[in-house]
Amino acid sequence: MVSWNNLDTLGSFKALEDAKKVNLAEAMSGACGADRVKNYTVPMAEGMAYNYAAKAVDDALIDKLAALADEANLVDKFEALYNGEVVNTGEKRLVMHHMTRGQLGSVVTADGVNKREFYTGEQEKIAQFAKKVHNGEIVNGAGEKFTTVVQIGIGGSDLGPRAIYIALENWARATGNFKMEAKFISNVDPDDASAVLGSIDVAHSLFVLVSKSGTTLETLTNESFVKDALKKAGLDASKHMVAVTSQTSPLAQSSDYLAAFFMDDYIGGRFSSCSAVGGAVLSLAFGPEVFADFLDGAAAEDKLATNKDIRKNPALLDALIGVYERNVLGYPCTAVLPYSQALSRFPAHLQQLDMESNGKSVNRFGEPVNYVTGPVIYGEPGTNGQHSFYQLLHQGTDIIPLQFIGFKNSQIGNDVDIQGSTSQKKLCANVVAQIVAFACGKDDDNSNKRFAGNRPSSIITGDKLTPKTMGALLSHFENKVMFQGFTWNINSFDQEGVQLGKVLAKKVLAHKTEGALKVYSDMFGI
Amino acid sequence: MVSWNNLDTLGSFKALEDAKKVNLAEAMSGACGADRVKNYTVPMAEGMAYNYAAKAVDDALIDKLAALADEANLVDKFEALYNGEVVNTGEKRLVMHHMTRGQLGSVVTADGVNKREFYTGEQEKIAQFAKKVHNGEIVNGAGEKFTTVVQIGIGGSDLGPRAIYIALENWARATGNFKMEAKFISNVDPDDASAVLGSIDVAHSLFVLVSKSGTTLETLTNESFVKDALKKAGLDASKHMVAVTSQTSPLAQSSDYLAAFFMDDYIGGRFSSCSAVGGAVLSLAFGPEVFADFLDGAAAEDKLATNKDIRKNPALLDALIGVYERNVLGYPCTAVLPYSQALSRFPAHLQQLDMESNGKSVNRFGEPVNYVTGPVIYGEPGTNGQHSFYQLLHQGTDIIPLQFIGFKNSQIGNDVDIQGSTSQKKLCANVVAQIVAFACGKDDDNSNKRFAGNRPSSIITGDKLTPKTMGALLSHFENKVMFQGFTWNINSFDQEGVQLGKVLAKKVLAHKTEGALKVYSDMFGI
Repeated sequence: MVSWNNLDTLGSFKALEDAKKVNLAEAMSGACGADRVKNYTVPMAEGMAYNYAAKAVDDALIDKLAALADEANLVDKFEALYNGEVVNTGEKRLVMHHMTRGQLGSVVTADGVNKREFYTGEQEKIAQFAKKVHNGEIVNGAGEKFTTVVQIGIGGSDLGPRAIYIALENWARATGNFKMEAKFISNVDPDDASAVLGSIDVAHSLFVLVSKSGTTLETLTNESFVKDALKKAGLDASKHMVAVTSQTSPLAQSSDYLAAFFMDDYIGGRFSSCSAVGGAVLSLAFGPEVFADFLDGAAAEDKLATNKDIRKNPALLDALIGVYERNVLGYPCTAVLPYSQALSRFPAHLQQLDMESNGKSVNRFGEPVNYVTGPVIYGEPGTNGQHSFYQLLHQGTDIIPLQFIGFKNSQIGNDVDIQGSTSQKKLCANVVAQIVAFACGKDDDNSNKRFAGNRPSSIITGDKLTPKTMGALLSHFENKVMFQGFTWNINSFDQEGVQLGKVLAKKVLAHKTEGALKVYSDMFGI
Repeated sequence: MVSWNNLDTLGSFKALEDAKKVNLAEAMSGACGADRVKNYTVPMAEGMAYNYAAKAVDDALIDKLAALADEANLVDKFEALYNGEVVNTGEKRLVMHHMTRGQLGSVVTADGVNKREFYTGEQEKIAQFAKKVHNGEIVNGAGEKFTTVVQIGIGGSDLGPRAIYIALENWARATGNFKMEAKFISNVDPDDASAVLGSIDVAHSLFVLVSKSGTTLETLTNESFVKDALKKAGLDASKHMVAVTSQTSPLAQSSDYLAAFFMDDYIGGRFSSCSAVGGAVLSLAFGPEVFADFLDGAAAEDKLATNKDIRKNPALLDALIGVYERNVLGYPCTAVLPYSQALSRFPAHLQQLDMESNGKSVNRFGEPVNYVTGPVIYGEPGTNGQHSFYQLLHQGTDIIPLQFIGFKNSQIGNDVDIQGSTSQKKLCANVVAQIVAFACGKDDDNSNKRFAGNRPSSIITGDKLTPKTMGALLSHFENKVMFQGFTWNINSFDQEGVQLGKVLAKKVLAHKTEGALKVYSDMFGI
């Protein structure tokens, strides 16, 4: 039986607050630093590793984090979650996204259905559909093959699938797994849909409409936008559209779609990349086998998150180092810095995943908490970021913890040797150099050229960004966010903070405004 | 004569610290709120406006900001800058980016050249070159027209030009100003160059190599990458490449390029979008007249920044409200939220502009400062962000000031009417609703659905995103960052914090490593 308590009521947290701080610059110097890099590493799935040598922790501090994990029952809470407890207490829902990629514990039945069978059933429906599209059994009105897939969705129906598509596009082209180009329409800004429609051959495009509720304003508006364009092109929209939605949504039984694939209320948008939300577009773009590999990578990483030993559970360790940095050291942000152009939009997905899950001020019982919760998350790929905002990271007045990601090999494999090294080696040399520069700093007589160091980072390393490693990466961060939410005793699975804006926007469109809202509306001629 | 003093030595700053705080939720309610929205607005160039009604300020506080502007000689410092004083004291350089778009004060001569004439001369050289490319006087080896321009550059040679290209692409297509597609190669990750080269017709592509020093590792590596691809395609690289560099760089006189266009040491990379760095690619993509309009918009906005009345100087007001939020209210970040898909990469440019300029811990004399300087800047377009990280902005434990941007009209003009409103109206309704939701909040018996409000934002409004309004927007933020740097008494125009990483990366590639650096290097097989 797990107990849900606020972080500041736990003895192990008080011990963490009182623990001796680590001087990172010192710890990372000389032979001691070399030992840290060798030892402070946790294997992840698919040959990856989480290395925390450059975090301001030591063995004594990790022991205190382990005690916190135990006292807060973090792994037990995860176990309760995947065994079907109603962990999303706000919305009174199960939290089932892990089940889309594997079954970690008990059979979970909800609404009279075995959830694992439900998700694998939908995955199989998608696989059959994608194969028929690829082999020409499902074609457009003129009997021709579809060449492009366009996802229409916003938030979790956009950021995760889009980031994963971009992450795997080059890999798929290089390995012969590229089936169809994917595009994404998300914003209600009409220029978004117009520009995408202007860039594709609509007659050979298949549109995937993604909305769990079937009522998302932006997505339904963009659906109409697309249907309008199809009609103007003399095409039958129902031959160009599939829906991804819940079985209870108005879209589920509509004849407007070639097919409908289902998710359910037990998977939040930001956790839905492994469900039909990511499954349809990624299976169409790269083939269902690639999507299955991606799920396998995520499932393998999930298993590691069940380990009660924090030194063998990378997501748990990452989560608690983050809590230490946030609640003891007082750092407000985390930057995610993948040294991989393919991961250019992964930080944007993690931004939603983390900030929408843990940007809360009340605990799971609705009581205000007396400590800070989720940090701001942002990031851009390296080496680009080095020529942009790293100045502040190195010499700014605030300390921003960093999450590096790096791979030994490129995806495409084309490279040039300039000045004795390949581009890939230069890329890796840069991430390695940055970790040490941030941790150790460098003194200088000219204070303008002085680096204080003591700026913590961790790095996730891998051999190559593939469907499996991408799945493992995604799982790692999903589980990290979950463990942090448990630690802060908040509900990471609802998002009530997005509601007020929706309500007021409806008022504006209905011209039911007064005061400031009316004057702003007038400004835009609404 | 201006005097350079630390912020915490100024009496006007102490007065600001002691000033009565404004209850924003109260101030923005009822008729009082309506009045604020009407009155708390400053005209910008090109029909735009900076509205600060939803900032936690009132007339008394603005008066205190005005006193701070006066005591810190902020506008005088700007005047000194554009009249040719060596404001970049670290590197002992003039700061001349304003001169690329107009002459605000004295003739400035440096290195024996009238700087205004130098910049307009380069702009004219680019215009002539672009016209010849467009009309077929400059063609590829087979005598065919170029269809694509590819910018090779990183940091300031990438983020600004790329953001502006994306901002104006749809506008240009809709208005018949679209000449050539532009692509960008920035990252040393070999997959970046490979993917771009795989997506274009290299035989009809013109490459613009941008490096002020002519020594940027990433850019020279990517140049070799591209030359290699051209050679493999049987093409003569020198017929496909132009250089943008300084006259003293090794690239300036090379026969490897069709043409060379010059910038100089008086323009930092992040401030270089209005120089040849942005000029070449944007003039090729949209025509030189469009680039000239963009410069005109920036010049018009620059003029407003010379106004000593803070209520008529939007950049100065924005800057000092930001200082108040950072140094008195203690907020660590600012989110930039354009309700315009076309501005999707503008926050990434502002992230460099702001964080690289003001992420400093020593003042312009090299002495440590006792207060925080530049905040973290990040952002994504609305409405997308609403379905992502806005949860934390509304209900998280930290307050993040917000900078909205919104336009009455879309760029392309295609739209659909759904449920009584167009997509553009829905877009505008959402930004309006968010401002009020953040400021006023909403009580609820269920604390999970409670919004505390008091979350400050400002909005820049305009009729449409065009070359002129884009220029004005860019100038606004450049000048805001400059005024904040003056206020913090730091040098916003150098970036010593990027050096250490470069030095260590070279060591890694030369295998001159030990300790932690060696073990990390081994991890990546370097």
